[in-house]
Amino acid sequence: MATIKDVSKETGLSIGTVSRVFNNRGYISKETREKVEAAVKKLNYQPNAIARSLSKSSSNIIGVILPHISHPFFSDLLSYIENATREKGYSLMVFVTKGDEEAELAMINRCRENKVCGLILCSGRFATKKIESNEFPVVAIERNPEGASFAIECNNRQGGRLAAQELIDKGCKNLVSLAGIKGRKMPADDRSTGFEEVCRENSVNFTCLTYPPELYDRLDYTAFIDKVLTERPNTDGIFASSDIIASQVIQVAASKGLKVPEDLKVIGFDDTLIATYTTPQLTTIHQPIKEMAELAVSTLIGLKDEKSATGCTIMNVSLVKRGTT
Amino acid sequence: MATIKDVSKETGLSIGTVSRVFNNRGYISKETREKVEAAVKKLNYQPNAIARSLSKSSSNIIGVILPHISHPFFSDLLSYIENATREKGYSLMVFVTKGDEEAELAMINRCRENKVCGLILCSGRFATKKIESNEFPVVAIERNPEGASFAIECNNRQGGRLAAQELIDKGCKNLVSLAGIKGRKMPADDRSTGFEEVCRENSVNFTCLTYPPELYDRLDYTAFIDKVLTERPNTDGIFASSDIIASQVIQVAASKGLKVPEDLKVIGFDDTLIATYTTPQLTTIHQPIKEMAELAVSTLIGLKDEKSATGCTIMNVSLVKRGTT
Repeated sequence: MATIKDVSKETGLSIGTVSRVFNNRGYISKETREKVEAAVKKLNYQPNAIARSLSKSSSNIIGVILPHISHPFFSDLLSYIENATREKGYSLMVFVTKGDEEAELAMINRCRENKVCGLILCSGRFATKKIESNEFPVVAIERNPEGASFAIECNNRQGGRLAAQELIDKGCKNLVSLAGIKGRKMPADDRSTGFEEVCRENSVNFTCLTYPPELYDRLDYTAFIDKVLTERPNTDGIFASSDIIASQVIQVAASKGLKVPEDLKVIGFDDTLIATYTTPQLTTIHQPIKEMAELAVSTLIGLKDEKSATGCTIMNVSLVKRGTT
Repeated sequence: MATIKDVSKETGLSIGTVSRVFNNRGYISKETREKVEAAVKKLNYQPNAIARSLSKSSSNIIGVILPHISHPFFSDLLSYIENATREKGYSLMVFVTKGDEEAELAMINRCRENKVCGLILCSGRFATKKIESNEFPVVAIERNPEGASFAIECNNRQGGRLAAQELIDKGCKNLVSLAGIKGRKMPADDRSTGFEEVCRENSVNFTCLTYPPELYDRLDYTAFIDKVLTERPNTDGIFASSDIIASQVIQVAASKGLKVPEDLKVIGFDDTLIATYTTPQLTTIHQPIKEMAELAVSTLIGLKDEKSATGCTIMNVSLVKRGTT
């Protein structure tokens, strides 16, 4: 394989000059640039990303830490992050915590070792405070932003409001919200806040419930939902804070002989593929997952040279009506 | 940040000796090792993965190319690959083609640039022949193995056989198999072969259909399924080659007033989370996704020093009975 030395020999230019062309550093004449490009083509020279990274303070690698990828919100998010990363000429290193805080620390170290140029943090458990002293910028998606350079959230409160309004408009009188993990503070908690506001404004009965963290880690909520419906038999509308939970509400309802949407109306959150796989298809709150992913990548790349910038972007959500309301 | 020079100074050992300890190369006395370990701890020295890679012929990065990650089979597979990779001390670089062959070529180049120590190829479109001359080993999962060092498949034919047998055992007389992409040869084609064998052995009416490639790329099969059920109104059992397709069969059946499993029995393939989100839950063929992922990673790491090894492992599948049969 051709090396930078071969390109230097072929062009008659010094290695330093060839390197300046590769890294687009300092003044380079058009003639010099063309000479190098011709030699690169002729020799089929492939610049070595590792060697190139070593001469810079970081690589062209972006790291991403996620709590799950079997969860469709995160697999969609990852899919869009990968696309945006690659389109901008970066490569993506992926880590999945499955809720393990110890693992998360090791992952951040692994990012450091690989000299990532930035980290996208979507994991919900770890206190970002611990990485404040990082040498790379951190963009957080849908999690507490302390310590992150930048945070991106959807408008969770607006989502809760839209869900409550739709259920009330469709005639529900006794509402339940299943949103938020007991004992973990997350941006998604605002979904309940918005839901509650609209219920109060319309004087409609409601209960806001949070679920134990192990359900989120296992992604199995059926026993919990069964208990809720058994204890509150007059419930006629449920707002679930993810499409996964909502799909399980549909199943539990079926097992109890309740028809959706006739006896029980259901709204999810996320608008992932899951929402179109259930029968009936799920009415849900659409998160702009693609836009959030693209903003995270472009913000991270923009922050590379400006590590002190901080901020938070809140993106609008919308109601997608399907068959469960 | 502490460098290898600082460790050398602290211990009084040469840089070469310290490097030998870091890379576990040649004879190192217990005393020397302990001295270095103490200095590393004291100085909070963090080895630079990039610098370390440069001194070796490859990095500790494994690349993986997938066709989709929103598809639950691939998100589950990726989740297990990430876990196995990290447990063995490697980092994972992820690329998603969404069926774009040009992008796939660029991704393989990106792997080359980042000096990956191996590549796991799960993408279904690209002719692996084109990377035969690679400088890193390639393990293929569920795709044509030409050019790959090693291929891992599940026993697709056995899966098709189990599906047909279950439908026949449950009394179906007119079966349809929806498996395989028109014009693309894939290991999954053997699912139809096995299905057909059992139908013939039992003298049961059957039709094996393939679907146009754009349905796979978009993951929306509903119009196609609707046409199949309209043209074959006496169909009482459907074998779909993924849980996604099967979930859409349930929806189309509902829209046509057909009850599942009373009027129409349905079997999927993969046994991903989707199978538990449908109503009723899906009877499906379980692929050992975790085992396939772990085998891919360990095979790849084992192949690093033995690039000429080739082979194929076929893993057993099983029937998981749920509510659709």
